[in-house]
Amino acid sequence: MDDPDFTNIANARIAIIGLGLMGGSLALAIKDHCKELIGVETDSASRAFAQQHNLVQRTTNFNSAQTDSDILILATPVRVILNQLEILGQSKIQNPKSKIILDLGSTKSAITAAMQTLPANFDPLGGHPMCGKETGGIQNADPDLYRNKTFVLCPLERTSSQALALAHELIAIIGATPLILSAEQHDTYAALISHLPYTLAAALMRTALANDNPALWQMAASGFRDTTRLAASDLTMITDVLLTNRTAVLESLTKYKAELDSLTTAIESGDAVALHAVLESAQRKRSELFK
Amino acid sequence: MDDPDFTNIANARIAIIGLGLMGGSLALAIKDHCKELIGVETDSASRAFAQQHNLVQRTTNFNSAQTDSDILILATPVRVILNQLEILGQSKIQNPKSKIILDLGSTKSAITAAMQTLPANFDPLGGHPMCGKETGGIQNADPDLYRNKTFVLCPLERTSSQALALAHELIAIIGATPLILSAEQHDTYAALISHLPYTLAAALMRTALANDNPALWQMAASGFRDTTRLAASDLTMITDVLLTNRTAVLESLTKYKAELDSLTTAIESGDAVALHAVLESAQRKRSELFK
Repeated sequence: MDDPDFTNIANARIAIIGLGLMGGSLALAIKDHCKELIGVETDSASRAFAQQHNLVQRTTNFNSAQTDSDILILATPVRVILNQLEILGQSKIQNPKSKIILDLGSTKSAITAAMQTLPANFDPLGGHPMCGKETGGIQNADPDLYRNKTFVLCPLERTSSQALALAHELIAIIGATPLILSAEQHDTYAALISHLPYTLAAALMRTALANDNPALWQMAASGFRDTTRLAASDLTMITDVLLTNRTAVLESLTKYKAELDSLTTAIESGDAVALHAVLESAQRKRSELFK
Repeated sequence: MDDPDFTNIANARIAIIGLGLMGGSLALAIKDHCKELIGVETDSASRAFAQQHNLVQRTTNFNSAQTDSDILILATPVRVILNQLEILGQSKIQNPKSKIILDLGSTKSAITAAMQTLPANFDPLGGHPMCGKETGGIQNADPDLYRNKTFVLCPLERTSSQALALAHELIAIIGATPLILSAEQHDTYAALISHLPYTLAAALMRTALANDNPALWQMAASGFRDTTRLAASDLTMITDVLLTNRTAVLESLTKYKAELDSLTTAIESGDAVALHAVLESAQRKRSELFK
């Protein structure tokens, strides 16, 4: 690859594609740390918000952002990222120098497979910051969204050491903690720790809805609120996640249903000691994990 | 029943049996509003905490509390409440006047059935405030725990209008909102809105534990934290809840598993439009319910 004329984030021109909660928060966190920050957003209201609040130095379209940036960060739902990678692969624009492509998508196997097919003048790697809010949108952008959060990186074999080093520098700037995983590892773990919880929350909301009653909702307290929180997530984002990580999500659901059956059996037994024993390890681990 | 010498909370002597999170919080919320506030707590550390922090005017034992109070509030786990009601029923102490018994237990059918068998000089009714914290104990007692929360009351046929009026006055003092339900209604709704969420959270923690890996835990973010929060609940409390509301909990689990199967089928189909449609009502209702 060509020798780039930028060696760190401070002298890099960065374009963020997608100014929603994730892209907008990233913009706020890095705007004072790079040479130029460009934003691309197809939704006119979100674009106007970004301009009015100076989240980026300027906004432009996808093609121009590609030409004008050293690092392209894709911060849209997974299937939009897949479309963007296809467009980049077919692009007639000849990049004079290597261009780093980092994405923030919630699943990684499909995205890194698509990255693998990009022309040689691209230097791609997958990323997934483990944070978010159930209320998305640029209006909720927060410069501290990434602080103290895990930021998974899935480098490809073709990813240059320079691209990986710059991704680490970016992660340090936004206050996150890097975690290097293969795309397959990421997707297996993300299914268990993120996509499964979403699915359970949605199924719980559907169960309550099927038994709709004013008194039922009046009895909903903080336990129900927290257990169902993920069910309020953006549907475009979550549909993309579940469908691009379908195999791992279905595997995690099979495992989960087996655990639910074990608990059901313990409740049916009416044996307090046995039930207590089944619940104990979960109680201990949850108490340790989030103090 | 005899005419009592107290007509409102301000001139009533109240005994709270069990000074944990619920009893301790109630003590803090009512101590300045009643004639005398007595506490009973068998755990010596909790009792010492209550004394040191003046949560109650004095502590005593269960028998003395019965003799010395006009209103007895049972704030222990459900099966302890059932034991206490049995002791009250067999008590040789002859109450000179009617004594109101209110409990704060999380399930109501078993408790109100036990209340039904009490001698005629008791004036019992069931209660369940819809609030709590996953970290129990008197150390976490909070005078505002009940504020703006729903407080379910399950009066028996034998419950006097005076007892019901005093329970309403107590609920007004602590800032909660009363909701009158039959014990059966309460238990059906509580299974769906509280006991089922707990069971799902515990099964999710068990699923993650069965796939234990440092990277998995490092990826656990706010979504996993909130969805599993209830799994950290006190095991004695929750074992009692699940076993004294077994039928309704098992029914809610059956309904839930059917919803989970519907979601699984939609994910398997790979049809984004169909999946979106299945998730949409849950997303809308959750967003409306907690703004």
